[in-house]
Amino acid sequence: MVLGLGTGSTAAFAVDRIGQLLKEGKLKNIVAVPTSIRTYEQAKSLGIPLATLDEQPNLDLAIDGADEVDPALNVVKGRGGALLREKMVELASKKFVCIVDESKLVDGLGGSKDAMPVEVVQFCWKYNLERLQALPELAGCKAKLRMNGEKPYVTDNSNYIVDLYFDTPIKDSHAASKAILALVGVVDHGLFLDMVDVVIIAGSTGIEVKQK
Amino acid sequence: MVLGLGTGSTAAFAVDRIGQLLKEGKLKNIVAVPTSIRTYEQAKSLGIPLATLDEQPNLDLAIDGADEVDPALNVVKGRGGALLREKMVELASKKFVCIVDESKLVDGLGGSKDAMPVEVVQFCWKYNLERLQALPELAGCKAKLRMNGEKPYVTDNSNYIVDLYFDTPIKDSHAASKAILALVGVVDHGLFLDMVDVVIIAGSTGIEVKQK
Repeated sequence: MVLGLGTGSTAAFAVDRIGQLLKEGKLKNIVAVPTSIRTYEQAKSLGIPLATLDEQPNLDLAIDGADEVDPALNVVKGRGGALLREKMVELASKKFVCIVDESKLVDGLGGSKDAMPVEVVQFCWKYNLERLQALPELAGCKAKLRMNGEKPYVTDNSNYIVDLYFDTPIKDSHAASKAILALVGVVDHGLFLDMVDVVIIAGSTGIEVKQK
Repeated sequence: MVLGLGTGSTAAFAVDRIGQLLKEGKLKNIVAVPTSIRTYEQAKSLGIPLATLDEQPNLDLAIDGADEVDPALNVVKGRGGALLREKMVELASKKFVCIVDESKLVDGLGGSKDAMPVEVVQFCWKYNLERLQALPELAGCKAKLRMNGEKPYVTDNSNYIVDLYFDTPIKDSHAASKAILALVGVVDHGLFLDMVDVVIIAGSTGIEVKQK
C-alpha cells in the first residue's frame, strides 16, 4: 500500500500511530510519500519506509488534517505552508481522508475568519497581492503577505504565501479557484475542491465520519 | 510612458536602442520594467530609469522577441528561461509588440521542433514531466528537463524548466495551455496566447509589420 502522509499538528498524530503499528507488526508492506520536509523527517525517525511521487506516482490512500471543512467536504488547507506538496500528493491518491476536530467545520470556505493561503512567486509579490485582493470572485477579502518574524515566510518551494482573510464565506469556491489560478505568478492555493472522500471529525460527543 | 523590456538576443537590441535615444534626448519621460535580472542589468548600465511591476502595475507598451509566431500572432517564448516574468509584465501592458526575424514564423506553435518551455516547481519534477508528456492535448510531445551543464537549469524564480518538443505542431494551443496549467506544480508555460498586438518581422526583403 502506498500512503500519503500529510503535514501539520493533526497529521503528525496519524504519522506517529502508523509508525507505532509498523513497529508492532500490525501494519506491513507500506511505503509512504510525505508532503513536506517536516513530515519526511518525522516519518524517517519512526522507521516508516519512504518514497517520493517520482518513484510512486499512484497512491492508494492519503491522510491529512484540514483548516476548514464545508458541508460538501471541500476544504481549506495550507495554514502550515505545505499546500502545494499536499495538493500534488493528495491528488495522486485514490482515496483522501481528512481528520479534523469539530472546530474546523464551516458553512462556507473562508468562513473561519482565518487565513486561506495562496502560494505566489517572490517576483513582484505585491503586484499579485493587489490583484488577488481585487478579484471579484474574492470580493471583500483582505490579503496579507505571510511573515516569519521580520522576513517574508518562504515555502519549501522558495515561494511566498499571501494569506486571504474573508469577512463572509467565499460565495463560489470553484469560481474563486479558477480566478486565482488564472493570475500569472500564482503557484497554487489552499482551496482543495472535490478532492476529499472521507472526513473524520472528533467532537465533544465522539467521532463522526462523513463520506462523499 | 511605462515600457516593458523583454529578455533575449533580439530584445537586447531594442533595449540598447532605447538607451541610445534617451542619451540623445530623442526619448524622454519613460520608465521601464525589465523582465529578467539580465535585462535589468543591461538597462541599468544604459541609464534607463527602472521600476518594478509592484511600483508600476500598468504599462503602456512592452517590447520583446519571440521563439515562434503563428499566423494568429500567438507566440512561443521562454527559451531564454524568463517566461514567467515576461508573461507577468507583458500581460500588464496595454500594447505588446514582438520583434522577430522570419525564421521564427511557423504554421502552428511547436512547429519549429525547438523547445516549448514549461516552468515547474523543483519538487517531484519527474512526476510532472511524465504527466506533461502524457497529456492528450500535447499528444506526441517529448519532455526533457532543461540542464545547465551537469545540473538542472534553475529559473530566476528557483524553479526548473521542462522543455517540450513536438514532431507536429500543437493542434489546439488554448486547450494545451489549459491542460498544462491544470497540473499542480506547473508554474507557467511558454505559450503566449491572445497577448501580442503587433509583430515586426525582419526578412531578407525588408521589414513586415503584422497587426492583430
